[in-house]
Amino acid sequence: MSALDDLMAHQRETEALAQVLGRLGWDQETVMPRGSAEQRSEEMAALESVLHSRRTDPKVAEWLERAEAELSADDALNGARLHHIRRDHARAVKVPARLAAEIARVTSVAQGRWAEARAAEDVAAFVPVLDEVLTLKREEADAIAAGDAEGTTRDRYDTMLDDYEPGATAAQLDAMFGALRPRLVALRDRVMGAAYQPPELCRDFDEAGQMTLAAEVAGAFGYDFTRGRIDKAVHPFSSGSGDDVRITTRTSVSDPFNCLYSTIHEVGHACYEQGIDPAHRLTPLGRGVSMGVHESQSRIYENQLGRSAAYTGWLHGRMTELFGDLGVDDPDDFHGVVNRVGPGHIRTESDEVQYNLHVLLRFDLEREMVAGRLAPADLEEAWNTRFEADFGVPVPRPSLGCLQDVHWSVGLFGYFPTYTLGNVYAGCLHEALRRDLPDLDTHLAAGDPGPAVRWLNTHVQQYGALRAPRDTIAHACGRTPDEGPLLEYIEAKFARIYKL
Amino acid sequence: MSALDDLMAHQRETEALAQVLGRLGWDQETVMPRGSAEQRSEEMAALESVLHSRRTDPKVAEWLERAEAELSADDALNGARLHHIRRDHARAVKVPARLAAEIARVTSVAQGRWAEARAAEDVAAFVPVLDEVLTLKREEADAIAAGDAEGTTRDRYDTMLDDYEPGATAAQLDAMFGALRPRLVALRDRVMGAAYQPPELCRDFDEAGQMTLAAEVAGAFGYDFTRGRIDKAVHPFSSGSGDDVRITTRTSVSDPFNCLYSTIHEVGHACYEQGIDPAHRLTPLGRGVSMGVHESQSRIYENQLGRSAAYTGWLHGRMTELFGDLGVDDPDDFHGVVNRVGPGHIRTESDEVQYNLHVLLRFDLEREMVAGRLAPADLEEAWNTRFEADFGVPVPRPSLGCLQDVHWSVGLFGYFPTYTLGNVYAGCLHEALRRDLPDLDTHLAAGDPGPAVRWLNTHVQQYGALRAPRDTIAHACGRTPDEGPLLEYIEAKFARIYKL
Repeated sequence: MSALDDLMAHQRETEALAQVLGRLGWDQETVMPRGSAEQRSEEMAALESVLHSRRTDPKVAEWLERAEAELSADDALNGARLHHIRRDHARAVKVPARLAAEIARVTSVAQGRWAEARAAEDVAAFVPVLDEVLTLKREEADAIAAGDAEGTTRDRYDTMLDDYEPGATAAQLDAMFGALRPRLVALRDRVMGAAYQPPELCRDFDEAGQMTLAAEVAGAFGYDFTRGRIDKAVHPFSSGSGDDVRITTRTSVSDPFNCLYSTIHEVGHACYEQGIDPAHRLTPLGRGVSMGVHESQSRIYENQLGRSAAYTGWLHGRMTELFGDLGVDDPDDFHGVVNRVGPGHIRTESDEVQYNLHVLLRFDLEREMVAGRLAPADLEEAWNTRFEADFGVPVPRPSLGCLQDVHWSVGLFGYFPTYTLGNVYAGCLHEALRRDLPDLDTHLAAGDPGPAVRWLNTHVQQYGALRAPRDTIAHACGRTPDEGPLLEYIEAKFARIYKL
Repeated sequence: MSALDDLMAHQRETEALAQVLGRLGWDQETVMPRGSAEQRSEEMAALESVLHSRRTDPKVAEWLERAEAELSADDALNGARLHHIRRDHARAVKVPARLAAEIARVTSVAQGRWAEARAAEDVAAFVPVLDEVLTLKREEADAIAAGDAEGTTRDRYDTMLDDYEPGATAAQLDAMFGALRPRLVALRDRVMGAAYQPPELCRDFDEAGQMTLAAEVAGAFGYDFTRGRIDKAVHPFSSGSGDDVRITTRTSVSDPFNCLYSTIHEVGHACYEQGIDPAHRLTPLGRGVSMGVHESQSRIYENQLGRSAAYTGWLHGRMTELFGDLGVDDPDDFHGVVNRVGPGHIRTESDEVQYNLHVLLRFDLEREMVAGRLAPADLEEAWNTRFEADFGVPVPRPSLGCLQDVHWSVGLFGYFPTYTLGNVYAGCLHEALRRDLPDLDTHLAAGDPGPAVRWLNTHVQQYGALRAPRDTIAHACGRTPDEGPLLEYIEAKFARIYKL
């Protein structure tokens, strides 16, 4: 066997074990008995330790060196594979085993503390452990940033970003938010002040019926149930790659759109993973290339397709069949119901106009924390001040403020901006696919997003991690991605809904 | 850290990873999407490879040597732990990695072929792969038998047995079956020829109601739902140790006892695992000590307790409440319904009188195969001839004959006799607990097996693998186990039911 073969065989086993770890996570959130948590944490730690050993194995470095030397210049496929293995190995070996284990331990504790603190509306109970997490994550980032492949010391926050969005920098994201913010704020002001306001649905919706609709819509959006399943969980998520990609959703009697759009969102993530060329399965290319590109798929499924006027036209009829009279007769009104812009504190429940403003607040605050300019003890005040400035309403309690998201407790600093990056990418992809599919609305109006999701599979999903994130989007759209298409789409859509 | 500490830390991670492998098996049989099978086999192979490396790690041998040298003579707990690690390591290192991988691959294929052959009633389609499995398992046994710890070459079949029932020999089992057979055959003849025959239930039973009853009964038998769950699967099984022990069951509209007694049987297995002293969790003592002792728990829960006259008296009332009129009014008749002895080809559906005769047939045939005196090509004829001689009726088709059990396809030679050993052990335990609990029937008649299952926990389950299998039973019963109590129990029970 060549060094490349040896490396790929080793890597394939590592990828398979990583899938197993992901499956344990799924199990924990869906079917695990509650008394199994302590034993489970030990099982996961054992598997994580195996993975860490494999990723930092000195044999990997030797194989990499020989395989890179032997690689022919025109072998782009193996070049891309080696690039990922090199990158992951370089990151892994820079983090001392002690630090990696400490991060795993502390974030596990912190997630529990966060949940308790949120339930008790008690930020002070969360601050000490957040402080610990932040300190460890800064230490990790500094270890990775010191003397990287190019021999230069990188910015600490950029190093964190790089874990979720390879190649992205805070400077790029600053520019992105700089372009988005004024136009979104201006649009919100016009929408909130518009004479026309969409009605609200004031009735209950049978939860079994919601799950029936969710499964039907998931199938229409291309989710392959022979290689996946839908379960209920507290938080919707998608888990796994290749031939076993499972999603979760949740139901609320009074809000059928929570279940429906959570499902479509997770189906977008899942279709990306299920849709990767089977030749990449269990290779370094066999998963979504970045969080931003992943989010572009979930958001375009959910918003540009699922919340389009054509699709909600179909949905209006289907929901009436399933649930009886909705109390809203006009399809345009119903489109407004689904896309209602209102005051709200929760990011995940936000409309398309304000969503990225919620993300921006987190991006700014986490950079301050990472830079050491904002202490966790001062987070609540900083959050509340900023929120009121940005959204015009005070934060009544921490669960609607700085305790609403799990991310920081589990050490996900640098993750939030990938949500907005995903929206920007989705805007570009939507522009391109609408150009290629002029009669898409006819299909959407019949409840069939098939042509759009097939376009996304052909142009994005099948390639997995073959190209870098921005290159993946540029290759699909035939243009360098920027904020223009997203802004134009949102402005046109909400001007129509609010009759501006 | 001492060598003992190092070894125990290594072992603990190995045990945790083994739990993960078990969980993947549970997932596969209950919730896995059907299109995930190929990827799953790769995931399981990767984890098995990690486990094999850990079990054969030369570090283990070094630690063992030093830990054994340092062990104080009165440290029985660590002595028992080291005994298990020594034994598993000695077995593992004797099997070449190539052979272990080949067995894993071929048995995985063979299980699929067996299922297809059984569905098609085509033994010939199964023979070639059975031949492969048998050849590999013989090779494995010979590798293990050659020059074992005592420096002597052991019998090949005994080596196989040892994997499931440490210390058992074919000679012992021959004597056991020799004691059982004549009295069971004589009893069967009297029962089958009796003037009184119990009625049959001729109606359907709502499957949701069956699952409700199963859950209720599982709880009464001590199954801890906070550390377990019940799902439906094609085959009932119990999976996992410690704080995550899950069982499966199945329902049949026309036969409510299939669901009920499968559940109680698996609850017996599960309570053994859940009931082990938490101090043994994820140590070599933290699981049932042998298949025979495991089966003693499942069988005593199912038969001596669950099919007792006192308990079926309660069941008669409860099932009438749940399902309406059963068509059988007399509790003695109902006890007969539950314990009906009849002609039947399927081991797993057999009554207590004939069950061990089904096992004996398999024990004899598999020993002939392992010794090379019976070729897989001749298995069907040998099975059919023997079955007709033993049970008086011909085998109409292979799914009711030599293709009914999965065991040989997955390489489980030497496993079947542990079922009968479990029954013999259950007989001894039942004699002892009845002596200690003179008013047990009062509790059983109220649907409460609590005193009996607590006795079993105190005398057997809590110890896990602390003592050798026979010593475990002897310690619990205060006597050397033999066939007497089982035979006396069966003879008395069926004489009463059949009014002999």
